[in-house]
Amino acid sequence: MSEADSPRAAADESWLDRVQWDDRGLVVAVAQEAHSGEILMQAYMNRDALAATAREGFATYWSRSRAKLWRKGESSGHLQAVEEIRLDCDNDAVLLRVRQEGPACHTGRRNCFFQRLEGGAWVEAAPAPDCTEMGE
Amino acid sequence: MSEADSPRAAADESWLDRVQWDDRGLVVAVAQEAHSGEILMQAYMNRDALAATAREGFATYWSRSRAKLWRKGESSGHLQAVEEIRLDCDNDAVLLRVRQEGPACHTGRRNCFFQRLEGGAWVEAAPAPDCTEMGE
Repeated sequence: MSEADSPRAAADESWLDRVQWDDRGLVVAVAQEAHSGEILMQAYMNRDALAATAREGFATYWSRSRAKLWRKGESSGHLQAVEEIRLDCDNDAVLLRVRQEGPACHTGRRNCFFQRLEGGAWVEAAPAPDCTEMGE
Repeated sequence: MSEADSPRAAADESWLDRVQWDDRGLVVAVAQEAHSGEILMQAYMNRDALAATAREGFATYWSRSRAKLWRKGESSGHLQAVEEIRLDCDNDAVLLRVRQEGPACHTGRRNCFFQRLEGGAWVEAAPAPDCTEMGE
């Protein structure tokens, strides 16, 4: 019997059954900088992503565009060390409280929510960094 | 020509076209307490909900379970006065920075993310208030 098949491993992941996965098997995930409260990004997780996040202590998401697990910072080095995992009252949203290494946004900005509505238009609340897009 | 049909009204809502509505016409919305950074809740908005939120200055969401617009606090009085509306880098998540009147969660807790993962189990990080559920 492999470790993954053992009753112990199965029991260890029973907490994942609490999550209300949607019809795509996903749940909304929000990452927040633990020390400042800054909201860094919003992404999605499937069961494997949330299991990996809890097991490894670094945020792993499900990339809908690439249809694969995506360990945040795997190519950029901008990892998210997870301090706390929370679930909301109806079990369909996960909050990660993290320590963000470098910028969270692929544009190089500290966080992804840099467009602010002002007078009926979106304005950039944070300037783009000098470098061009730093896609992961 | 009614006001809604006028070129001015149409132009006023052109900022809504920036948002990447999903195949249900929805976008993820996260509400954050402006003064403390506390993440209060996650819900969804359709175009009408986001337009109403910007126009009225109070958070309005789309209730998927009731299939109707839902002005947060409309029955409980626990309104969310919106200080800032932000959009993320790929235009598919909205962040509301708000002043929350009373508890944000229908359980009476201050925020909805009160389940914390500890040692492979979800534990309640905030106690339930004395009252029973305070559903809106």
